[in-house]
Amino acid sequence: MNTKTIELIHGDGGKYTGELIEKIFYKSFDNDILLENMDSALFSLDKGKIAFTTDSFVVNPMFFRGGDIGKLAVCGTVNDLTVCGAIPLYLSVGFIIEEGFPINKLQKIAESMGNTCRQANVKIVTGDTKVVPKGKIDGVFINTSGVGFVKGYVPKKIQSGDSIIITGTIGEHGTAIAVDRYNLKVKGNIESDCAPLNYLLDYLQKYKDNIKLMKDPTRGGIGEILNEVSKKSKLGIHLLEKSIPIREEIEGINEMLGINPLYLASEGRMILVVENDVAEEIKEGLKKEGKCSNASIIGHFTNKEDFVYVENAFGGKRLLGSLDTQMLPRIC
Amino acid sequence: MNTKTIELIHGDGGKYTGELIEKIFYKSFDNDILLENMDSALFSLDKGKIAFTTDSFVVNPMFFRGGDIGKLAVCGTVNDLTVCGAIPLYLSVGFIIEEGFPINKLQKIAESMGNTCRQANVKIVTGDTKVVPKGKIDGVFINTSGVGFVKGYVPKKIQSGDSIIITGTIGEHGTAIAVDRYNLKVKGNIESDCAPLNYLLDYLQKYKDNIKLMKDPTRGGIGEILNEVSKKSKLGIHLLEKSIPIREEIEGINEMLGINPLYLASEGRMILVVENDVAEEIKEGLKKEGKCSNASIIGHFTNKEDFVYVENAFGGKRLLGSLDTQMLPRIC
Repeated sequence: MNTKTIELIHGDGGKYTGELIEKIFYKSFDNDILLENMDSALFSLDKGKIAFTTDSFVVNPMFFRGGDIGKLAVCGTVNDLTVCGAIPLYLSVGFIIEEGFPINKLQKIAESMGNTCRQANVKIVTGDTKVVPKGKIDGVFINTSGVGFVKGYVPKKIQSGDSIIITGTIGEHGTAIAVDRYNLKVKGNIESDCAPLNYLLDYLQKYKDNIKLMKDPTRGGIGEILNEVSKKSKLGIHLLEKSIPIREEIEGINEMLGINPLYLASEGRMILVVENDVAEEIKEGLKKEGKCSNASIIGHFTNKEDFVYVENAFGGKRLLGSLDTQMLPRIC
Repeated sequence: MNTKTIELIHGDGGKYTGELIEKIFYKSFDNDILLENMDSALFSLDKGKIAFTTDSFVVNPMFFRGGDIGKLAVCGTVNDLTVCGAIPLYLSVGFIIEEGFPINKLQKIAESMGNTCRQANVKIVTGDTKVVPKGKIDGVFINTSGVGFVKGYVPKKIQSGDSIIITGTIGEHGTAIAVDRYNLKVKGNIESDCAPLNYLLDYLQKYKDNIKLMKDPTRGGIGEILNEVSKKSKLGIHLLEKSIPIREEIEGINEMLGINPLYLASEGRMILVVENDVAEEIKEGLKKEGKCSNASIIGHFTNKEDFVYVENAFGGKRLLGSLDTQMLPRIC
């Protein structure tokens, strides 16, 4: 048997599946619950509110500047729990792999997942591996689901005047994917911002009564997320263009590509809707947390309109609609 | 926009993704937690032991006699929780869909999932939808993860003399897939046995101290599962061929195909390892539960060997090894 690539028999549930799991996955994800090797992972939880989420990842290319599909899969699910105020605890992972996929690449992906889990202090405790014939899937697709424990925070009714904070510069993940997929020759340091956000929960805990909503602006970027929030809250949103942190290189490339970076995914940023009178304080505190030095108040809610608009440096206003044209597919 | 097939924009996280989710998924899975539409599903649990599991489904064909990929995805995860003694409560679902996939087929799959959830008394509370370009995936792949609450039962050390019960006839799911995939002209009523098993937990609860292990013989069938158990317990297994319930049609087709049905997946059966002195009683009780009329004691553990063998009607014995040749791919 070829030992350098994944074969169909690796997905048969027999001896070779077992070997693959032990050699690649157990080594990378190493923890007691996983090694119990039961049909389900078993763990104890206190009585309380549980958060449960799922995400599938089909990103192309699988390895990109600033990350890979494995890192992205861990961050995506960790962050979906985080924005619900839940401390991420346990993840599951489901691999669907194309026959012929190089085992060393799979190993790299698994190691990246393991490293990101250790960084985020979460554990992959259960998994599944399927192999499909060559040509029936493009490389590797990954699903991660996650369980977290909610600690105090609950989303609250948004009101006119509430402020919107973003924890850092926007559009870097989407841009990194575009650059790598289309082999664009670009100058400057372009990297995905992909990162776990749960480390922020400690800092944000003391503002749990002032935070109305947390969101991670992944697919659809801040443009789409804010449109959803505006629609749901029946309030307008007034964004100040000059306050939206964006790196010069990112702006330049997207101008060239004709893409509005407000719709581009960030995979390591959070949007917060907070009471106006503590917005400045929360933002300043965020700046002292790792990776949030560009945190900014980008706008506020209004009761005049029920749509999102952006005001530019000259006072001109333009509508930022819901995403209804096609963006880059497979960015996550 | 074409409204009959899935387009890339359905996976962009914008307006069309939202429409798809509302029209197809919310309607089929309808429940309060899902409709909250948060980044994670939120629910309360009592203090206790939680079971968490995941499974991806790539079955081909997607619609087969006795079921479809949606029903299979719900049953698979429900049963993985069940065999850990956990009452299945909440499921997540991740869809990865090929551009151009017919929306009416997706709807059929979603409805089938919804129906199976109602049958099993579980809820799909969170989900994710990705679309990949035509040719990059074969139709639809589904991941389901699940959370359950463990009630009393824990697996125990298996000893020589312990009995092995199967709750019904074997190999029907694998055979149904083979027949439909290869368009075999066969007589007799061939159907997948795919079904949720959690309804058995009520009956089995009173034997929780006598049950040493529960397993669902999916990929690899009872042959592979029992080899794993034998290896882990360091005991031999002695199976009686005439006690293994198998329908005549299933035996006939597999003889024709040259497949050993002991390695074929069942998706609605359970294997139980129980104390010998209550085995008969447990089996007889099982027969009165729905769909278990063919429950049978198929063998027992021995301390003489550390491998699995099958004794035929004439007393001849043959080894049943771990699966190391390729079976049917994509049976689940």
